[in-house]
Amino acid sequence: MFSEKNAAAGVTFPKGFKAAGVKAGIKKSGNLDLALIYTEKEAAVAGVFTKNAVAAAPVIVSREVVKGGKAHAIVANAGCANACTGETGLANARKMAALAAAEVGCASDEVLVGSTGIIGVNLPMDKLEAGIKAAAAELSEDGSKNAGNAIITTDTYSKACSCEVEIGGQAVRFGAIAKGSGMIQPNMATMLCYITTDANISSQLMQKALSEIVEVSFNMISVDGDMSTNDTVLVLANGASGAAEITDGSPEYDKFYATLKEICQELSKRIAADGEGATKFLTINVSGTKTFEDAKTVAMSIAKSPLVKTAFFGEDPNWGRVICAVGYAGIPMVPEKTVIKFGGVPVYANGLGAEFNEDDIHKVMAEHDIVIDVEMGMGDAKATVWSCDFSYEYVKINGEYHT
Amino acid sequence: MFSEKNAAAGVTFPKGFKAAGVKAGIKKSGNLDLALIYTEKEAAVAGVFTKNAVAAAPVIVSREVVKGGKAHAIVANAGCANACTGETGLANARKMAALAAAEVGCASDEVLVGSTGIIGVNLPMDKLEAGIKAAAAELSEDGSKNAGNAIITTDTYSKACSCEVEIGGQAVRFGAIAKGSGMIQPNMATMLCYITTDANISSQLMQKALSEIVEVSFNMISVDGDMSTNDTVLVLANGASGAAEITDGSPEYDKFYATLKEICQELSKRIAADGEGATKFLTINVSGTKTFEDAKTVAMSIAKSPLVKTAFFGEDPNWGRVICAVGYAGIPMVPEKTVIKFGGVPVYANGLGAEFNEDDIHKVMAEHDIVIDVEMGMGDAKATVWSCDFSYEYVKINGEYHT
Repeated sequence: MFSEKNAAAGVTFPKGFKAAGVKAGIKKSGNLDLALIYTEKEAAVAGVFTKNAVAAAPVIVSREVVKGGKAHAIVANAGCANACTGETGLANARKMAALAAAEVGCASDEVLVGSTGIIGVNLPMDKLEAGIKAAAAELSEDGSKNAGNAIITTDTYSKACSCEVEIGGQAVRFGAIAKGSGMIQPNMATMLCYITTDANISSQLMQKALSEIVEVSFNMISVDGDMSTNDTVLVLANGASGAAEITDGSPEYDKFYATLKEICQELSKRIAADGEGATKFLTINVSGTKTFEDAKTVAMSIAKSPLVKTAFFGEDPNWGRVICAVGYAGIPMVPEKTVIKFGGVPVYANGLGAEFNEDDIHKVMAEHDIVIDVEMGMGDAKATVWSCDFSYEYVKINGEYHT
Repeated sequence: MFSEKNAAAGVTFPKGFKAAGVKAGIKKSGNLDLALIYTEKEAAVAGVFTKNAVAAAPVIVSREVVKGGKAHAIVANAGCANACTGETGLANARKMAALAAAEVGCASDEVLVGSTGIIGVNLPMDKLEAGIKAAAAELSEDGSKNAGNAIITTDTYSKACSCEVEIGGQAVRFGAIAKGSGMIQPNMATMLCYITTDANISSQLMQKALSEIVEVSFNMISVDGDMSTNDTVLVLANGASGAAEITDGSPEYDKFYATLKEICQELSKRIAADGEGATKFLTINVSGTKTFEDAKTVAMSIAKSPLVKTAFFGEDPNWGRVICAVGYAGIPMVPEKTVIKFGGVPVYANGLGAEFNEDDIHKVMAEHDIVIDVEMGMGDAKATVWSCDFSYEYVKINGEYHT
């Protein structure tokens, strides 16, 4: 579905969107750190934000814009989270929106704001102002790559994707940029994801779709169990495709929904795979529970276990740590009914370690992508969580002062 | 309260207890790995066990003994957890009790069993049998040190303590050995703790005390958030002090309770401080919540955050990660009412980073023992959790195959 050719186009792949990414001098590294995404045609907007009780200033401001339902731009910076910055921080976030609004020529309350980086430090407003001016001047249909690079922090690469689908006989495009890395956990910690589309849909209906989809995509990943103050997923739909408006319950809605879900799941997987210091990408499928929530709880218990994560880092087929994490998840389970497989190879069944070929299992453990299947035998529900291992590098990245 | 002089006496400090620790060849290292604790005079017994749905065979057997209320011995091994070993494992755990019973001359159902080490491997019964015979032959009042060393795994040292208090005008003694290290988390994961006393108390009353005390001691520590299949706390009271029986609600009960609590909290702290790869011992005090449970939830959220743990490893006074962990704990909080202190130095207040002297804070972060205070300003309840940092060494220990 996602062609490499279109991936670079990212958020500017849908009609009517421009983007830019510039060096505002906020990151200590001097790399790109200020992104601007713009649509001249007004877009309907939907958003999902952190559930952390300590919400950063840009989250507070963007929530207000989402409530209004329409937007023309997203302005975001990396290097400073503008979190735990009190009244000054909130004023700075509002000023950030106003500065971008002035540059692109729209109302301040139609500009969404994002920040990621260290907590407790005020935005350098002079640098930010100059950066916003520079970004506005550089807005173009080729600007998505720079915008994507401007929002990353400890990510090893910028996540982007785009695709074109037919909705109601009309070609409709979607594009996205995202950053993740450390502090990733359900509720999308320090995760920024900006999705654009030229579909024609109301903000209310899009919000309904997005809220549901986040539950089976961004809320199903875990890098370290932490949840940030800043995480945000936004979708802007400007209708520039010329397609008819998508209505609830229509086949067009189903198509829109399926496409948005695929984008969100694809980005979720990439974010988990690029977790700080990650050397393994883990897909954890839990099935046979009574409810989706039960399956998710068990999968998250495995995904968050430092003992499981370090075992996979060490390529140790330590199913004992996995069954242990299943056991303490607090969900009804019977050890004798539970089956665990690594890469399709059964490693635990009937309450015991399964007999397996050592070569088979070591081949599985040596892979970068490893699937862990847990069959509980208690019902028909299931869930999938994406995660990564825990390495020396994770400790190094997070055990040192960094921006 | 705990004198260094008595610490070595451990579980044999109370009258009438003998112990031994021998090399049975179960640990690959060849170190001491089989412990036996014995009281000729029948002891009342109380126990608290893992809540993991996957309970190891020795836990199943010991639960039955605790139900019976009386015991003469504890036999425990390290190097093999006898967990996820099915019917064979259960038969082996029962045989382990029977072998010890035959050696010391008591009924099989008066012998408690413990195992710690790798999961999914059967006990080497021949080695175990020889080890139990050797341990029985070596039982002595000087055997606690060897017994303590025989139950440790990745611990860097054996935890032991003992003390004498006056209860009802009579000298009463307590002693203990414990092992912890990795997989430590509420519900006492891969934690074994054996406490002896010559107090005179019924198993029912002692069970009531122990169940309450575990909630504010062993269930308040976290090394890595994992909970094992084998964790066990046992108390044996043989009445050999000659003191009158302790009755519920009496001043004697209060004294017994306070002493047992102090022992359990002391061992909990030492276990947290000796977490795998730990370089820092963290005491996390959360106050000003509506309930103890709320305070515990917030403290555990901080204690379990890999980002907080790696920050302390790096001696980085990163209060942002702490307030973030407070925020996602899911407990009512108002950022502006919350105050965070590291080593008594306020680092966060009024929704903002507090002004602090850089030298002061770096002195705090350089210490081995660091106190994190979080005042929530929402009520009068409080809780304390003990934890440690996350180091390269943790990843190394758990990312390699090991016994």
